[in-house]
Amino acid sequence: MNRPTIADIAERAGVSKGAVSFALNGRPGVAEATRARILQVAKEMNWRPHSAARALGGARAEAVGLVIARPASTLGVEPFFAQLLSGLQAGLSARSVALHLLIVENAEAEMEVYREWASAHRVDGFVMVDLKVRDPRIEVLEELGVPAVVLGGPGGHGGLSSVWADDREAMLSVLEYLAALGHRRVAHVAGLPGFRHTRRRVRALRDSVLRLGLEDAVSVPTDFSDSEGAAATRTLLSRPRRPTAIVYDSDVMALAGLGVAGEMGVRVPDELSIVAFDDSVLTRIAHPAITALSRDTFVFGRRLAEVMLEVIDEPGLHRDVRTATPRLTVRESTAPPGDLAG
Amino acid sequence: MNRPTIADIAERAGVSKGAVSFALNGRPGVAEATRARILQVAKEMNWRPHSAARALGGARAEAVGLVIARPASTLGVEPFFAQLLSGLQAGLSARSVALHLLIVENAEAEMEVYREWASAHRVDGFVMVDLKVRDPRIEVLEELGVPAVVLGGPGGHGGLSSVWADDREAMLSVLEYLAALGHRRVAHVAGLPGFRHTRRRVRALRDSVLRLGLEDAVSVPTDFSDSEGAAATRTLLSRPRRPTAIVYDSDVMALAGLGVAGEMGVRVPDELSIVAFDDSVLTRIAHPAITALSRDTFVFGRRLAEVMLEVIDEPGLHRDVRTATPRLTVRESTAPPGDLAG
Repeated sequence: MNRPTIADIAERAGVSKGAVSFALNGRPGVAEATRARILQVAKEMNWRPHSAARALGGARAEAVGLVIARPASTLGVEPFFAQLLSGLQAGLSARSVALHLLIVENAEAEMEVYREWASAHRVDGFVMVDLKVRDPRIEVLEELGVPAVVLGGPGGHGGLSSVWADDREAMLSVLEYLAALGHRRVAHVAGLPGFRHTRRRVRALRDSVLRLGLEDAVSVPTDFSDSEGAAATRTLLSRPRRPTAIVYDSDVMALAGLGVAGEMGVRVPDELSIVAFDDSVLTRIAHPAITALSRDTFVFGRRLAEVMLEVIDEPGLHRDVRTATPRLTVRESTAPPGDLAG
Repeated sequence: MNRPTIADIAERAGVSKGAVSFALNGRPGVAEATRARILQVAKEMNWRPHSAARALGGARAEAVGLVIARPASTLGVEPFFAQLLSGLQAGLSARSVALHLLIVENAEAEMEVYREWASAHRVDGFVMVDLKVRDPRIEVLEELGVPAVVLGGPGGHGGLSSVWADDREAMLSVLEYLAALGHRRVAHVAGLPGFRHTRRRVRALRDSVLRLGLEDAVSVPTDFSDSEGAAATRTLLSRPRRPTAIVYDSDVMALAGLGVAGEMGVRVPDELSIVAFDDSVLTRIAHPAITALSRDTFVFGRRLAEVMLEVIDEPGLHRDVRTATPRLTVRESTAPPGDLAG
């Protein structure tokens, strides 16, 4: 990887180093024919402006940082995340901006990487995911003063820009639908309680008890894995008066729950209705196909990229973008509660 | 993003700039107590060595480049690719090396990005995917002299290192299994004919006709999409003497083919056996569950990362790593050909 210097190009083109510098930087002071010859030679020698030199000059890194404190193996499993990354990459790539991606152990390591990359100007900005309740990462990004967009909200993202969907609104729409079908014992297999969007869904269920006349409404926290989703379903279906409907915080967990219902001889939807947050190929090809909250996650990721690029272009900008609330796609896994369930 | 300078730190710590420089670079020439105070001040001011300065000094970018000439929307859809990326990221992240990711329009743009990133030292090396027959990208990476690892082989990757699985061997194992079940009319819904691994699978089928006594053996090229997979299946099942078994080059296409069989009233596996290259949650939860060639794609991606890091550590190294051949996981979609199919 021998990078040609200005001197190398000058020698090959038979001109002065000053002429090469003028030509390469598009400045006047060199004849048009000479400029053309210099550019041709530079191209032949595979010359490119040095990122180091550009960075020192305050130019852009042309990359956006994404640091994820999750086990890498889960990234390829959860359709939501894979689609989100696709949309994000599509949005950035449209402007030839790369995604600079690193997986770390925990939030502390994540914050350390934010400091390093910001200071070393490895990236022009950060996208932050998995917003938590009282999230310490917000303050770090605010202090660094680097452009940043948070996936999640509303609120909880300090002075940073954010792109979000209304999880409370979405959860309420599911509960109203189930109540309208006649369900009074509704359970919620939730995600990690530290996540802000989990918290909003749990509260939406709690706040609906009186209004919708629910007899029983319980949220069971999990780590989002299919195994904990299955275990929570087993516990719920083993109760003397089991729920007639379960809302799952992800498609992967809903599919695991459907498997447990089959294994325990509980018929879906006759004896148990199932609804999934996050729609995907998993919910569509399940048998029975699973009623789910749908949104175009690819488009959501692309929107995130657009806002990131806006904030990079105009660092003072504060954007708070509410995207469309996921809507219920009713399939075969939901029905009025059967007589057996009474 | 105000980066503190050596001068800022010197002023705050009440020492000379030279002392700061010595302290930050771990060189002798400054008293231990002073060094400690300087490092403390630097930490408080969030000082980090400038990547630009480090790049000029020949230090590493601590990133590996992956440039993909595919529509971004497909990245989140194909489980193989999502898992591969996860494994790659896991392997790199274990050494705190980031993945620098960009999606481009076509191979020309991809090669242009290789030149730019190599010249600007944005990355320490490249991982190249989707190896094609007579792939022009190989020569570009060879000329740049930058560490690179190709996903694909054997052969066709010039002097570059490569990590591969034997697609010919895998295809032969599927065909032998189908022949042993009694199938004589076998079709292959292939991927893009320009891909080297597609070519090897097509040849394996052609080379098996005599040896396995096949009456009919046709490969139909597609673009890997579920819609072309479905269309190819419709064409094959509309033939007067339709195939009794179809091998699909991906799980997504196999699932689409299963749907078409259902739509045309062709029973699987009684009247049609289906086998998928690439195993995933899609093949496992399909009804009937699909017989597939399985491998641990996450581990495959991690192996790719390991070889990449080895080649970066020792630039002259040439590695040609054959990984385990995918093995057949037999499920419900394969059986001996029925009487109806005779």
